[in-house]
Amino acid sequence: MMSVQEFKSMLKTEAGSVENYLSTCLHNRNIPQRLLASMEYSLLAGGKRLRPVLCLAVAAMCGASKEHVMPFASAIECIHSYSLVHDDLPAMDDDDLRRGKPSNHKAFDEATAILAGDGLLSEAFVLMSETAQHLPAASVLSALNTVAVAAGSGGMVGGQQLDMDFTGRDDVSLEELQTMHAMKTGALIRCSCESGAILGGATVEEQERIRTYGANIGAAFQIVDDILDETGTEEELGKPVGSDLEQGKNTYPSMLGIEKSRELAQKIVDDAVEQLAGFDGVEAQFLRKLAQYIVDRVS
Amino acid sequence: MMSVQEFKSMLKTEAGSVENYLSTCLHNRNIPQRLLASMEYSLLAGGKRLRPVLCLAVAAMCGASKEHVMPFASAIECIHSYSLVHDDLPAMDDDDLRRGKPSNHKAFDEATAILAGDGLLSEAFVLMSETAQHLPAASVLSALNTVAVAAGSGGMVGGQQLDMDFTGRDDVSLEELQTMHAMKTGALIRCSCESGAILGGATVEEQERIRTYGANIGAAFQIVDDILDETGTEEELGKPVGSDLEQGKNTYPSMLGIEKSRELAQKIVDDAVEQLAGFDGVEAQFLRKLAQYIVDRVS
Repeated sequence: MMSVQEFKSMLKTEAGSVENYLSTCLHNRNIPQRLLASMEYSLLAGGKRLRPVLCLAVAAMCGASKEHVMPFASAIECIHSYSLVHDDLPAMDDDDLRRGKPSNHKAFDEATAILAGDGLLSEAFVLMSETAQHLPAASVLSALNTVAVAAGSGGMVGGQQLDMDFTGRDDVSLEELQTMHAMKTGALIRCSCESGAILGGATVEEQERIRTYGANIGAAFQIVDDILDETGTEEELGKPVGSDLEQGKNTYPSMLGIEKSRELAQKIVDDAVEQLAGFDGVEAQFLRKLAQYIVDRVS
Repeated sequence: MMSVQEFKSMLKTEAGSVENYLSTCLHNRNIPQRLLASMEYSLLAGGKRLRPVLCLAVAAMCGASKEHVMPFASAIECIHSYSLVHDDLPAMDDDDLRRGKPSNHKAFDEATAILAGDGLLSEAFVLMSETAQHLPAASVLSALNTVAVAAGSGGMVGGQQLDMDFTGRDDVSLEELQTMHAMKTGALIRCSCESGAILGGATVEEQERIRTYGANIGAAFQIVDDILDETGTEEELGKPVGSDLEQGKNTYPSMLGIEKSRELAQKIVDDAVEQLAGFDGVEAQFLRKLAQYIVDRVS
């Protein structure tokens, strides 16, 4: 069994490798200076790098080389980063702060922030399609399709639309809230795992279990995020406490209360861990710990 | 030789097939209603469908089935459509009209327009990656990479950034203007041809010539667009005449005069046609006529 200490050390190492790769992946691509600065401002603003770390660990668990999967995994972080830039725009959530720093359109301007987001999304597909140098083209294309669907209008983008549609409505059901989050944040986290499984050459049955693991991680992550928005400090969050409630957003704590929300997150994480039964090795242990780590942030 | 009449009839037929495909390609994809409406509002607002028509004709000229290439070709139109939606936003070019109709953020709202653009870009990669059902995965991935690079921050998105950087500056050189347009409008037109060549199984030498054909078509297209902005009617343009000049944009006519701009466009088109020497059949004839057709709009 992996100790918490070992897990945290491995998490830090993995996130560090992603960080290294991200810090140069947009260079030598003929990007106008101001646009590149804006893209890197957000892409290199820190963060847990959860999505690429998941993709790498799953791919390695299934047999792929992390080095070969790195461009693909990092592409998912580019997509995550673009979504934050666009979500913060005045016409969207109108957030001036992100991770304790001015959000992109505040540090640059609105037009540049829109283009930086568009650029990050496009570069993600450049990175993914470059992965074929080392992995079978059919697997890369299938993994890329999974990510495109998850990031798109039936996934993350559609979830953001539902989030706006729901904001201010007081009759949103728990089921609607879950659907919205499964699309808005869940889909990208899920596809990080699923694409890793495809790239690692997992069987269809393994892909299915890893897909469920990822979906559960994503769902638990959102519940925990909602809880932290109420119970965390501004320093921990990098944004004002209670901003969800202030914006009239429906959250798990507002619908279930803090305690029931915590219990739900734990139940979902337990189910995620069960999906990994049968997988061995250090990566599998890491992924089990990672699931629990998400809930531990609020207990 | 293909007559002008035959060319126009073929152009209409090809654009009609694309139109048909576009009209249902976003259905059954779990897209929230308002978002789908916004995406289709712009995607199905007409237009010449030049980019997918180029992709299909080149692919067929090189030996692929148009039916198999259709999702890929239509994806490029989704990218073109998203770029127009984002370009029209208040923070960007702030255009209220597009093809004689309210632009997307006027018909819906800014947030929805941003998401519709994001959605169209993502769905483009869904469509491209689905093409692998009928074509070799390695070719699809290579063609997709070409499109992603052309659409991204070193291509179309970067060109829009340069356009904004240049607007209002009175010391922009002809070379800078050409670089900006080669990125902003040229890259996507070029990659429509190039990806068609890759999907059609063209040799590397053929790909190179088709790439040059496409780059020239793109360059000529922009010069003609600039000329029409000064000499066309509002009805023809679907937007006010002279809007480029009013916004302080640098254009070919403003730098070279109308007559010299026309000559330049003709020279570039002649060179494009030369690249197709050695290609036979109805598609090659169609592509030669299409090149000339672009200049004929202003002579």
